[in-house]
Amino acid sequence: MKQLLVLNGPNLNLLGIRQPEFYGATTLADVEDLCRQTGAALGAEVTCFQSNHEGALIDQIHAARTTRDGIILNAGALTHTSIALMDAIQSVELPVVELHLSNIHARESFRHKSWIAPVAVGQICGFGPAGYDLAIRALLAHIEAAS
Amino acid sequence: MKQLLVLNGPNLNLLGIRQPEFYGATTLADVEDLCRQTGAALGAEVTCFQSNHEGALIDQIHAARTTRDGIILNAGALTHTSIALMDAIQSVELPVVELHLSNIHARESFRHKSWIAPVAVGQICGFGPAGYDLAIRALLAHIEAAS
Amino acid sequence: MKQLLVLNGPNLNLLGIRQPEFYGATTLADVEDLCRQTGAALGAEVTCFQSNHEGALIDQIHAARTTRDGIILNAGALTHTSIALMDAIQSVELPVVELHLSNIHARESFRHKSWIAPVAVGQICGFGPAGYDLAIRALLAHIEAAS
Amino acid sequence: MKQLLVLNGPNLNLLGIRQPEFYGATTLADVEDLCRQTGAALGAEVTCFQSNHEGALIDQIHAARTTRDGIILNAGALTHTSIALMDAIQSVELPVVELHLSNIHARESFRHKSWIAPVAVGQICGFGPAGYDLAIRALLAHIEAAS
Amino acid sequence: MKQLLVLNGPNLNLLGIRQPEFYGATTLADVEDLCRQTGAALGAEVTCFQSNHEGALIDQIHAARTTRDGIILNAGALTHTSIALMDAIQSVELPVVELHLSNIHARESFRHKSWIAPVAVGQICGFGPAGYDLAIRALLAHIEAAS
Amino acid sequence: MKQLLVLNGPNLNLLGIRQPEFYGATTLADVEDLCRQTGAALGAEVTCFQSNHEGALIDQIHAARTTRDGIILNAGALTHTSIALMDAIQSVELPVVELHLSNIHARESFRHKSWIAPVAVGQICGFGPAGYDLAIRALLAHIEAAS
Amino acid sequence: MKQLLVLNGPNLNLLGIRQPEFYGATTLADVEDLCRQTGAALGAEVTCFQSNHEGALIDQIHAARTTRDGIILNAGALTHTSIALMDAIQSVELPVVELHLSNIHARESFRHKSWIAPVAVGQICGFGPAGYDLAIRALLAHIEAAS
Amino acid sequence: MKQLLVLNGPNLNLLGIRQPEFYGATTLADVEDLCRQTGAALGAEVTCFQSNHEGALIDQIHAARTTRDGIILNAGALTHTSIALMDAIQSVELPVVELHLSNIHARESFRHKSWIAPVAVGQICGFGPAGYDLAIRALLAHIEAAS
Amino acid sequence: MKQLLVLNGPNLNLLGIRQPEFYGATTLADVEDLCRQTGAALGAEVTCFQSNHEGALIDQIHAARTTRDGIILNAGALTHTSIALMDAIQSVELPVVELHLSNIHARESFRHKSWIAPVAVGQICGFGPAGYDLAIRALLAHIEAAS
Amino acid sequence: MKQLLVLNGPNLNLLGIRQPEFYGATTLADVEDLCRQTGAALGAEVTCFQSNHEGALIDQIHAARTTRDGIILNAGALTHTSIALMDAIQSVELPVVELHLSNIHARESFRHKSWIAPVAVGQICGFGPAGYDLAIRALLAHIEAAS
Amino acid sequence: MKQLLVLNGPNLNLLGIRQPEFYGATTLADVEDLCRQTGAALGAEVTCFQSNHEGALIDQIHAARTTRDGIILNAGALTHTSIALMDAIQSVELPVVELHLSNIHARESFRHKSWIAPVAVGQICGFGPAGYDLAIRALLAHIEAAS
Amino acid sequence: MKQLLVLNGPNLNLLGIRQPEFYGATTLADVEDLCRQTGAALGAEVTCFQSNHEGALIDQIHAARTTRDGIILNAGALTHTSIALMDAIQSVELPVVELHLSNIHARESFRHKSWIAPVAVGQICGFGPAGYDLAIRALLAHIEAAS
Repeated sequence: MKQLLVLNGPNLNLLGIRQPEFYGATTLADVEDLCRQTGAALGAEVTCFQSNHEGALIDQIHAARTTRDGIILNAGALTHTSIALMDAIQSVELPVVELHLSNIHARESFRHKSWIAPVAVGQICGFGPAGYDLAIRALLAHIEAAS
Repeated sequence: MKQLLVLNGPNLNLLGIRQPEFYGATTLADVEDLCRQTGAALGAEVTCFQSNHEGALIDQIHAARTTRDGIILNAGALTHTSIALMDAIQSVELPVVELHLSNIHARESFRHKSWIAPVAVGQICGFGPAGYDLAIRALLAHIEAAS
Repeated sequence: MKQLLVLNGPNLNLLGIRQPEFYGATTLADVEDLCRQTGAALGAEVTCFQSNHEGALIDQIHAARTTRDGIILNAGALTHTSIALMDAIQSVELPVVELHLSNIHARESFRHKSWIAPVAVGQICGFGPAGYDLAIRALLAHIEAAS
Repeated sequence: MKQLLVLNGPNLNLLGIRQPEFYGATTLADVEDLCRQTGAALGAEVTCFQSNHEGALIDQIHAARTTRDGIILNAGALTHTSIALMDAIQSVELPVVELHLSNIHARESFRHKSWIAPVAVGQICGFGPAGYDLAIRALLAHIEAAS
Repeated sequence: MKQLLVLNGPNLNLLGIRQPEFYGATTLADVEDLCRQTGAALGAEVTCFQSNHEGALIDQIHAARTTRDGIILNAGALTHTSIALMDAIQSVELPVVELHLSNIHARESFRHKSWIAPVAVGQICGFGPAGYDLAIRALLAHIEAAS
Repeated sequence: MKQLLVLNGPNLNLLGIRQPEFYGATTLADVEDLCRQTGAALGAEVTCFQSNHEGALIDQIHAARTTRDGIILNAGALTHTSIALMDAIQSVELPVVELHLSNIHARESFRHKSWIAPVAVGQICGFGPAGYDLAIRALLAHIEAAS
Repeated sequence: MKQLLVLNGPNLNLLGIRQPEFYGATTLADVEDLCRQTGAALGAEVTCFQSNHEGALIDQIHAARTTRDGIILNAGALTHTSIALMDAIQSVELPVVELHLSNIHARESFRHKSWIAPVAVGQICGFGPAGYDLAIRALLAHIEAAS
Repeated sequence: MKQLLVLNGPNLNLLGIRQPEFYGATTLADVEDLCRQTGAALGAEVTCFQSNHEGALIDQIHAARTTRDGIILNAGALTHTSIALMDAIQSVELPVVELHLSNIHARESFRHKSWIAPVAVGQICGFGPAGYDLAIRALLAHIEAAS
Repeated sequence: MKQLLVLNGPNLNLLGIRQPEFYGATTLADVEDLCRQTGAALGAEVTCFQSNHEGALIDQIHAARTTRDGIILNAGALTHTSIALMDAIQSVELPVVELHLSNIHARESFRHKSWIAPVAVGQICGFGPAGYDLAIRALLAHIEAAS
Repeated sequence: MKQLLVLNGPNLNLLGIRQPEFYGATTLADVEDLCRQTGAALGAEVTCFQSNHEGALIDQIHAARTTRDGIILNAGALTHTSIALMDAIQSVELPVVELHLSNIHARESFRHKSWIAPVAVGQICGFGPAGYDLAIRALLAHIEAAS
Repeated sequence: MKQLLVLNGPNLNLLGIRQPEFYGATTLADVEDLCRQTGAALGAEVTCFQSNHEGALIDQIHAARTTRDGIILNAGALTHTSIALMDAIQSVELPVVELHLSNIHARESFRHKSWIAPVAVGQICGFGPAGYDLAIRALLAHIEAAS
Repeated sequence: MKQLLVLNGPNLNLLGIRQPEFYGATTLADVEDLCRQTGAALGAEVTCFQSNHEGALIDQIHAARTTRDGIILNAGALTHTSIALMDAIQSVELPVVELHLSNIHARESFRHKSWIAPVAVGQICGFGPAGYDLAIRALLAHIEAAS
C-alpha cells in the first residue's frame, strides 16, 4: 500500500475562513478527510500535516524520505519565497505534486513565481479543494508509471 | 450530456515523435481516444481539434461559444505568445482548463509565462498524457459546481 | 475617388458579443456599414475585411499596395505581438491609421505597446465604434495633405 | 450649449516655430481659431488656454470642474512626467480627450508613456492640427453618449 | 542526392519591392532560382516555399521531416516572436541554417533576438540574396560532416 | 513657542471633493483648522500653505529656513516626481515629516516611490486627516528630542 | 475596552543593543511598557508579543482574529520578505498598523518594499519608540471611525 | 557683441547656504558677477536669471530665442526630470551649454540622467563656481566656430 | 581560549545524503567533528548547531553575542532570502565567516545573491567540507588581527 | 588583387585544444592555411594575425586602413565586451565580416550580444572552421558589389 | 611648475581621420600641441601619451603617481567598460579631469555610463579639441584651490 | 612536487599603497613571498606573475597549461569585465582558485559579478593577504582530492 504525505503550509489552517472569494468554505479538516478518502479508494494511505513554520515543513519533508512514496505540497505563500523548501524536496528525492487552491497564474504577478515547481513532477492549481483529489490521482499514477 | 472541446495547438500533431524525453511515446490519436473515453465514462461528449494555425484555434474557440460547455486547451508554444488566444477565450465566456504535457514551470523561463492562465479556471501541467484525464475530470467538476 | 481598406483583426468578428463593458453592443457588420457610409459621405469607397489569421491580414495588406490609397487597421491583440504586421505595413508604403475601440493606454500594461504605431500615421483609441468615423476623416485628410 | 476647454501645455505657444518637421507651420492662434470654429459648427463653445507652468494647468482643470462639460488636453512634455496632472483630471471628474500633434508612439520611447491616458476617455495623436478637429468631435460625441 | 528545403516567411514575397535600402532589388523568384542553381551545382535538389502564415510554415517543417535532409529558414519577423517555429524545428530533428538578408544585429534591438537560433546549426545574416548561396554551402557541408 | 509650517501640494485644495473613496469628506480648510488646533494644544503655532505649483512650494520651504522650526509636508503627486523638492528640503536643514492621506504603499506601484522620504524624519500615511494630528505630535516630539 | 496586540518581529528583542545609531537605547521592555501605558490612557488594553520565528508571528495573528480589535505590527526584516505574513493579515480581517522604528524609505532600497503595506491601514516610520505611541493613537482612531 | 543668458534653476538661489560640502560658499550673486565679468573680458554681455519654477525657466528660454546668442543652463534638479525643458531648448534652436556645480556622474544614480544633455552642445560639471567661467568660454568658442 | 560557533542552516542535516554530486558523502556529524578538531589544533573551542528553522538560527546568533568570539555560518538556502539573518548578525557585532560547500557563484543565478555577505568578514565557497577547516583558520586569524 | 586581413582574438591560438565539443580539432594554423587557400582560389591575398591583447587587435585594424580591402574578424570573447574594437572598425571604414566558430546565439545569453555587429557587414556563426571559407566568399562578394 | 599628464585612449590616434562628423579634422598631434601651449601659458608643463592598450594606460597612471600633479584623461571607449582604469585612478590619488570630444550624453545610451566619473574631479564633454584647453584650465584651478 | 601559479591582475602591483582602508599595508612582494613560503611548507613550488594587461594574463594562463598543476587568480577589476579570462581558464582545464583581498560581495554591486567564478573551483574573499595562504591550502587539497 502506497504511503502519501499531504503537506499544507502557512495560513491553510484558516481554510474556510480566509478569503472565501478565493478559497471557498471547505475547512482544512474537510480537505484532509477528502484526501484520506480518495487515497483509500485508490489503495493508498494518506497522512496529513499543516504548519505555519517553514522549518517544520522542512523537517516533515526530511522525515518522509524513508517513510513515504510521495508528497502533495500546498506550500501557501512559501511557494513564492522559500528556496529552502525547494532544496528540501531535492534532498529527499521523492516525487512531489505541487498544489494550489486558486489559479496562482491568474492572480498578482508575485504569485506566478514558484520555487517548488522546478523540483516537482507537476502542478495543479485553480480547482479549489477538488484539486487535492486530482493531485492524489496524479501522484499515484506517476508513482506507478515510474516503478 | 455535457459537450467538451479538447483543443491542441502547434506541434502537438507530432506527439509521440517530438522530444520523447519530455512528452513520451503516446500519439495525438491516443490522447484524443483517451479524452473521448474519459468523457464517456463521466457522461460527457468530447470533440477534438488540432491545428498549427493560431487563427484556426481562435475560429474553433469562437465556434464553441454556442455549442460547447467548456474547453480543454493545450495551446503549445502559443501559450507564451498569443494575446489573441487570451482575448478569444475571454470573448466566449466558456470555462477553460489550461493543460501542458510537461511541467512548464520547471523548463526554460520563457515557458513560465502563460497568456492563457489569466482567463482559465485552472492549470494542470507535468503529468504527460494522463493530464488530459485529470483535465476532463476538473472541467466537469467545475461545470457542475458552477451550475 | 479614394479607395480605403478597413482591416479588423482577431476577435473583432465577435464585436457586440465580446466584453460589452469595453466595446459596446455594436456588431462588426454595423461598424463596417458605418465605415462605408462615412466614406461615401466624404467621397471615398471603403472595403472591409476581418480575419483571425495574422497571415490573412498580411496578405490583404500586400494586396492593397496597388489597389488602395490607405488603410485603417484595428489589429486587435496582434497589435501587441506581431512584428510581421509592422513589416507588412512598411513594405507597402501606404498610409495607415491605427485604431482601437478601447483606450489601450488605460488598460493592462501589455496593451500599451503597439508594433503598428511606429509605421502608422497616427493612432485613435478609446472612442468605441465612433472611432472608425474619426479614423476615416483622419486618413482622408492625411491623404489630401500629402498629395 | 456645451462648454469645452482646450488646454495646451509647455512649448505649444511656439507652435509653427518649434520643430516644424514634427508639428508643421500652423500657429497656436490658428489652432485655437480652428477649435472655436469646429466647436461652433457642432454647437459648442470652446475656450482656450495655454501655459508653460504645470501649476497653472492644474488650476485651470480645477476651475473647469463646475464651468465646463469636457476638456481637450495636449499636455506637451508634461504628458510623460506629471502625475499631478493625472490626479487633477481624476479630481474633477470631467471627460478628457488626450491629444498630441505628433504620433508619440512612433517617437522616442520616453514619449510612449502617458500619465494622462489612464484617466482620459481616449487618445488621438499623429494628425497635426487636424487632430484638434477630431478631438472636439470625439469629445462631443462622448458627452452626448454619456448623457 | 541531398534534398533541401528553402523556407521563407512573412513579407519575403515582396522581396525586391519592400525597403530596397535594406534588401535590394532581387525578387523572391530570383532568390529561389539562385537557390536551385547553387543546389544543383553542389549536387543537391532544392525546393522552395514562402508563406505569410506561421501555421503554414510549421506544416512545411513537419512535412520535411521524412522528405528533406535539411532546411534553410528565413523566418522574417517571425524569427523574433515565434516559439512555435522553434518547437517545430526541434520536433523534426533536421539541421536548419538560419538566414537573414540584413544584418539583424545591426538594426533595431527587437530584431537581435532570434527564437530560431537556439535550435539552428548556425546563422548567416547581412549579405543580402548572396546569403542564400552561402547558406546552401554551409548546410551541405554540415550534412556531410555529420554523416 | 515652536513655529510649524504645514505645506500641502497639488490637488489638495480639492480635498473633500476629489476621490472621496480615498480621502474622505473633510476639506482643506478643516484640515488646516485641525492643524492649528492640535498645534495650539501642544504649544506650537501652525501656519498653513497650499499650492499646485512646485516652484511655489519650493519658495515656501526656502522662506521657512529662518522662520520655522519644522515642516509637515504632503506634497501630493509631486512626492513621486520632484527631485527639486527633495533638494529644497535638504537645503534648508529643517526637520520634515512626510504625510499622505492614503496608504501610498497600498496603491499603484508608482506611488510607492517617494523623493521626500530620503530627506524626511519619518513618514505617516493611510490615516486620512487624522494623520495631520499625528504628524504634528511626531514633529514636535522630534524637535524636542533633538534640541 | 478595546483589545490591541503589539507584535514585534525578528531582532527587536535586541532593541537598545542593536545598532543604536538607528534605533536608540530604549529596550523592548521599555517599548512594551510605553504601549501598555498609552493604551491604558486611551482606554485600551494592550498585549505584547515578540518572536524571531515567522511561524510564531503568524500563529499569533491567527489567534488574534477572535480576541483582539486590531494589531500594531513591527515585522522587522520580515516586512521585506514574508508574503505569508501578508496572507495571515488578510486572513484575519483585523485592522493592522504597520510600524518601523527607522524611516525605511530613507535606508537601503531593499527596505523600501513592504509586503505588509498592501494589507495595512497605514504606515508610521522614522520616529523611533515614539512611533508606538502614535500607532496606538492611529489604530484606536481608525477602529472608532470604522465602528 | 554676443548676448548670453545664464539660467539657474531650483534651489540655486540658496547657493552658499545649501550643502556647502558639495557646492562651496560662493553665493548666487557672486556667481552672476563672475559670469558678467568673464563675459565682459571676452567681449560678451551676460544676463542672469534664476527661478524655482520650471515654467518661468521655459518662458525665459522662449524669450531668449530672438534676443540671445546662447544659453548656459544649470537646471538644478529639473535636469533629471524635465522633458519640457528639453523640448523648450529644442524649440528655440540656440546653443546651450549644460552646467553643474558638482560632478553629477559621481553622485546618486538618479543624478546621472540628464534630459538637457541630448539637446546641449556639451556638459561641464564638477568644478564648482569656476565651471561658469569655463562654460562662458566654451559657449563663445562654440558660437564663433559655428558662425 | 577562543570560543567559536559553527552554525549550519536548512537541509545541512542531510549532508552526505542530499545531492552528493554537489556536496560529497561526508555527513554533518563528520563536519562538526572536523571543526572541533581543527579548532582544538589551533587552540579554540568550537560549538556546533544546525536547524531548519530561521528563527532558531537567529536565536543562536543572539545567544552567541556574549558567549562567543566569532561565528562560521553556512546558512544554506536562507543565504539568498533572509534579511532577518543579516540583521541578526549586524545586531551582535561578532565577526562572521560565510561558508558554502559548493561554489554558489558557479550555480543558478539566484544562488549568487547573499544577504550574509554585506555583514560578513569574508566568504569561502566551493571547497566542500574542507571549507570548514579553512573558515576556522580564517576566522581565528581575523580575530587575532583585530584584537 | 584584393588584400584581406583575417584577425583572430583571445584564446583562438588554442584552437584545436580548447573545448573541442564546441570548436573541433582543427588548429589555428590549419584555419589560417584554409583562409589563404580559399583567398588564393578566389584571387585574393589573405594575411592572418592573432592576439590575446585587445590593444594589439586595435593596432592591426588601424594598420589595415590603408593596406587592406576588408577584414574577417573573430574577436573571441572581446566580441561581447569591447566597445573600443567597435570604434576601431568604425574609424577605418573598411568592410568587416564578423565570424564565430560556434553559434553564439545558441549559447549563454551573454554571448548573444555583439559590439562588432553594428559596424559589420554581416555575421556568420555556427559552422566551425568552415565558416572562414564562407566569410572570405562573403567579404569578396561584398567588396565586388560595393565597388 | 605644475606637471600635468594628458592621457588619450583607444582610437584617439586616428583623430582627424575617424568619424569627422563627431570629432572634426584636428589631429592628435594638434591636440597635444594645443595642450602643451595652454599649459605653458598657464605655467604648467604638459606631457602627452596615447595608447590603444588598457594596460599601458594603467601603467602610465601608476607612473604619474609620484611625478605629476594631475591627469586629463580621455579614455575613449574604455570609459564605458574599464573598471580597472577606475581602480588605477583611485589608487594613485591624483586629481583627474575626465574629457570627451563629443557630448557622450547625447549619443548612444551605452556611452552615457562612465567608470571614470566616480573617481574624477569633473567632466567636460562636447566641445571637441577646445575641450582640452578647458580641461587644463579646470585642472590647474582645481589643483590651486586644493593646495 | 606540485607546481602552482599565483596570478595577480591590474593595480595589484600597488598593493600596500592603494586604498589601504580596503587592502592593508602589505606589498605585492610580501604577498608573493608569503605564497612561496606557504607553498614550500606544503610541498609545492609557487611561481608568481602580475600584470596590468589582460592579454598578458591570458598568455600566462595558456603557458601554465602544460607546466602547472593549478592557478590562484586574483584578477582585480578584470574579474568583473573579462569574459576572455573566463574563456582562457576554460581552455586550459586547470583547477583555478579565485581570490580577492576584500569581500567583493560587501562592496559596490558591480563588484559582486565575477566572470571567473563559473570556471573556478571555489572563491575566497575578504581575508586580505591571509587569503593567499588559505587559497594555496585549498588548491593543494583540491588537487590531491582530484588525483
